This record gives sequence, C-alpha cells and structure tokens, in this order.
Amino acid sequence: MAELANVSVATVSYVLSGRDRPVAAETRQRVLDAARQLGYTPNQAARSLRRRRTQRVCLVLSTFGGVPADERLATDLHEMADARGYSVITLAVYSEARAAAAIEMLRGGIADGALINVVGDHLARDLLEGVAATGLPMVVLSNESGLEGCDVVRTPEAEASAEAVEHLLATGRRRIAFMGQRHELYRDKPAGRLLGYLTALERHGVTDRVVTGGADDRVAAYQTATELLRSPDRPDAIFAAADRAAISAISAARDLGLAVPDDVAIVGVGNIDEGLITNPQLSTVGPLRHDYTDVVRLLFDRLQADEPPPAREIVRSWTFLRRGSS
Amino acid sequence: MAELANVSVATVSYVLSGRDRPVAAETRQRVLDAARQLGYTPNQAARSLRRRRTQRVCLVLSTFGGVPADERLATDLHEMADARGYSVITLAVYSEARAAAAIEMLRGGIADGALINVVGDHLARDLLEGVAATGLPMVVLSNESGLEGCDVVRTPEAEASAEAVEHLLATGRRRIAFMGQRHELYRDKPAGRLLGYLTALERHGVTDRVVTGGADDRVAAYQTATELLRSPDRPDAIFAAADRAAISAISAARDLGLAVPDDVAIVGVGNIDEGLITNPQLSTVGPLRHDYTDVVRLLFDRLQADEPPPAREIVRSWTFLRRGSS
Repeated sequence: MAELANVSVATVSYVLSGRDRPVAAETRQRVLDAARQLGYTPNQAARSLRRRRTQRVCLVLSTFGGVPADERLATDLHEMADARGYSVITLAVYSEARAAAAIEMLRGGIADGALINVVGDHLARDLLEGVAATGLPMVVLSNESGLEGCDVVRTPEAEASAEAVEHLLATGRRRIAFMGQRHELYRDKPAGRLLGYLTALERHGVTDRVVTGGADDRVAAYQTATELLRSPDRPDAIFAAADRAAISAISAARDLGLAVPDDVAIVGVGNIDEGLITNPQLSTVGPLRHDYTDVVRLLFDRLQADEPPPAREIVRSWTFLRRGSS
Repeated sequence: MAELANVSVATVSYVLSGRDRPVAAETRQRVLDAARQLGYTPNQAARSLRRRRTQRVCLVLSTFGGVPADERLATDLHEMADARGYSVITLAVYSEARAAAAIEMLRGGIADGALINVVGDHLARDLLEGVAATGLPMVVLSNESGLEGCDVVRTPEAEASAEAVEHLLATGRRRIAFMGQRHELYRDKPAGRLLGYLTALERHGVTDRVVTGGADDRVAAYQTATELLRSPDRPDAIFAAADRAAISAISAARDLGLAVPDDVAIVGVGNIDEGLITNPQLSTVGPLRHDYTDVVRLLFDRLQADEPPPAREIVRSWTFLRRGSS
C-alpha cells in the first residue's frame, strides 16, 4: 500500500489508524485511494478501525420486551443518546451462549460503551469484569457485590419487598403466596424479591410459605393465581414479583367471585402506571418515579471523560405504596 | 506494510481482505504481524474488514418493546439465529434521525442482513431501497407497494379490520368508535386498521365516524375509552387498533357499570393470548398462530445463498375471531 501510494509505511499507518499525526491532505487522500484500490472499502469497519470510535452505545437486556422498567430505561438511553449524537444497539441476553456472544461483541468494539441490566445469572460477574477490564465504559444495574471497573446501579428490591410482605402480615394476612419470575426461582440462593418475602416471613415467625412461578407473563400469572385461589388452602394474600402479574391476579380473583382485598390481598412490584387503572388500584413496591436519566448520565459521563473516572455507585430508592388492593 | 512483512502488496491485500486466494500460512502470519505492528488491532472492526462477515443479523423495530407481535418476531429471530451461530442486534427506529442512523449502520456493514418491521413513515421506501441496493440481505414487513431488492412480508390488516367492523355493523352497532395508534392517525392517507374501519363504514353507508388516539398504551386506552363511554353520544362499539387497548376498554366499560357486549361491543387487533383471560373474552382480528419462523427463514435463506435469490413475498393470513366481547 505504501508503494502504491508512494508514501512511507509510517504515513500509511498514521492515516489508516487515525492517530494524531499531521499528514498533508493530498498525501492522506493518496493513501486512502491506495487503500481503496487494495480492497479496503470505505465501510463502517474501516472507518471505525481508523477512528476507534463507533459513536454507538450498547444496551444489554435479558428479554425481548414486555418488561416496563426495561422500556423506560431504553427510552431514557435513546433520548440521551439522540441528544449526544450516539446510536443505540440492543442485545438480548437470555442464555449462556447469548452472554458469551454479547461479551465477545463488546470486547470486539461493537460500541463505545454499554449499559447492562443484568437479570438472572447469565451474565456472570467475571465475564462482566473481563469486559470492564478492557477499559470499555460500562454501567451495570446489579445488586451483586464486588463488581469492579464499572459504575454500578443498585436497587433495594429485597428490602422493599420485605416491607410489602410485612405490611401484609401487619394487616392480619397469614398465608401469603409469592408468585415469582423464573430467574428468581432458579438461583442458587434466594435474592431480590424472593429474598424479601422469605426474610419478612422469617422475621415474624411465619412458617407457611407458598412459592410459585408464573410472574413472567400475564397469562401464566392469571392461570397461576386461579390455581392458588381455587385450592382448598387458599392464600389470603398474593405478593407477585411483577405488577403485570399482580394485575392478572386481581382479574383471576374477580373471575372466581372473590373480593380484593377482603378475600385476598394483592401486592405487586414495579409501580407501573397501569396499577392506577385496576379496580381496586394496585398496591406495589417500586420507584416513585420512573426516571433513568441519572443512570444513563453515568454512562455518558464515562464516555466523554478524558481519563476513566473512578467507579461510582447509585442506589435507586424504592418505596412501598399501599393502595386499594391490600 | 508490504515492506515490513517482506511480501508483495497483492499478498497484503489478499490476506487482509480475506479474499479467496492461497497464501502460505507462514506468509499470512507475517502480514498479520506487520498489520499489528502498524496499529491494526485484531479487534472486531479489523476482523470484519478481513472476513466481510459479522455473523450478525439486525432486527429493526419501531419501539422499545411493549408490542406483543414484535416480541414474538424477536423471539423467533433469536432462536433461529442461535441455531445458526448468528448474533442479533436490535435497533429502535422512532424518528427520522433514528432512521437515518439505522440506514447508515446497515450500509456500513454492522450486520450481514436485516429483518425490518416498518411501522409508520420513518423508514421511507427510498431509504430502504438504498440499503437493499447495496446487496444487504433484507426482509421487510410492510404493506407498501413497490419495495424492491428485498423480501417483503405483507399483512392484510385493512381487509381483516374491515371484516371486524362489518361484523359490528351486522350485529346492529351503528356508532362505532375507532381507537387508533399514533402512527396510524398521522399518515397522509389512511392505511391498515384505520383504512379497514373507514372502508367498512363507507361500504354500508354509515356516516357516523368517531376516530380517536389512545391505542398506544394501556393507560391512555383506558382513559380514552372512559371519555368515549361517558360522553352523551356514547358509542355502541369500540374497535381498538391493538388488543392491549381493547382490554383496557373492557376494564373502562366495567368500571363505568356498562355491560360488554350488551351496552358496548369491543373488538381488538392482534389476537394476543391475553384476550382469552379477559371477561368476557376479547373478539379480535389477527393471525391464528403467532409464528414468524417463515418470515425469519426468508432472511437466513438469503444470507446463506451463494447468489442473491429473487425477491420473494409472503402474505400472512389474518382472521376475525368472534368471542364474548362483541
């Protein structure tokens, strides 16, 4: 290429790598022409190789949608990326294989930074740290301890969930069922919402535990709640790990002729707006406002810093909101 | 680089471009070493430049989630990509700027092919055709005519919607409200579900038209339905452009003490499973089965073909399903 362009090898290197060295415009053009002749198309790969910048950020989620909090996070990320001239690509990580592929893409430079909402055990800590160690600006939403080299956003789910269950106990409920999401039920040890449920019962010496799945989608939740409420030892409360599931449980109770909250109290998690249009309105735990701009700002602060800033931690605040359903 | 590796310029070109020419392993290694020395890091950009293959497919949607059909499409795409060793990246296109950025990424080679679910007017036809003309394998879900250079998947939304509205007319409804999605209401001329509604009314000489928004999310739909049903000239039927909106309308009617379908008939679009757990069950138009494997297969057929196959067209079949709500 150097021969073809009639310049030094060093000049080729400067031009193609985009390193900060003065090269005359005409020389630069000659190198680029030679590069083209040799098959280096002026495509994205070549450009990003030169600039070492993709102007993209990557959003890593566990699902394909249907999770209201993920949608809010995505909305805030896209809006702030728009304002800063970044594009957003999204990866869904729902298996070990997908996790490995995501890590490889991130290590390979598919984006300039990543916002990762870890749910379940697919994105193991050492993998995440492996990516962070390459210097990729990264913000991780996770309650795992010891994550290093990235900003971490924590949510006190267990504490807030325990508060909800203690409220149910305080109002006289004694047989409280937990309807969980798949990723919560198949962990090595209880965490998050399930942990909160178990902690509250233990604290109050209640040994009656009913743990089911079903909170992952509305139809499964309806069917699970129907089964629970039809059983001879019917629970007097359902704590569902997602508002959508709790809303289905309210429908199931009504369709069985049961009164909410008199016959069965129902509490969800997430504080989605839809909890205000159910009848009765849904008690829930979650953030008072759905606003992830502080989380997203961590990422862009990191992207725009000259030197990697020290790792920061945000703790989001969650509240128990008692409404008509409990 | 040729000097450094002590090989011909042509050899450098063969090795780096990954073109199909025999180069001795030792020579190849020398070129790669020289490339590294000159700052060509063995990162993804460099690799994809060499291989001209990313092993990625791109899913382009209009939203961040919350649309059940998009979630099914994403699920099927991810599953088939898994089986074939492809990764999936997702782009959300909800504005002209996002459309331009998506087109640039696709033209720039961010993926080996794209599956595009076009909703609204953001991804204008000439832009799509510009991408297809670069030879990128592409499957587009769209009812627009004249899309060339890619496979097209059509959905007879207007016809199926007209059928639903004609059913309402046939059962004696005379004041039928249409609750639409934003992108349907702000087009230059009616298309899809709104067109079906208007066509049916016109066909039967019904001049009473009520067109509102609100079908984009559950809460807005509940509020819109409440307003409609509280108005002095209350509609005797609501045709909602999305099942989620129709389900909210059922709740709104019940909360106002109205009987469904006696006081107001309600029909949705989409045939999501949740329509079977409402009370009464939801009448709807949509596919009998949610299965996009035939759509996804078009993309992989295209990706794995030696020669670009001729453009194909699939017409998905939609049916009106009368259930308890109408």
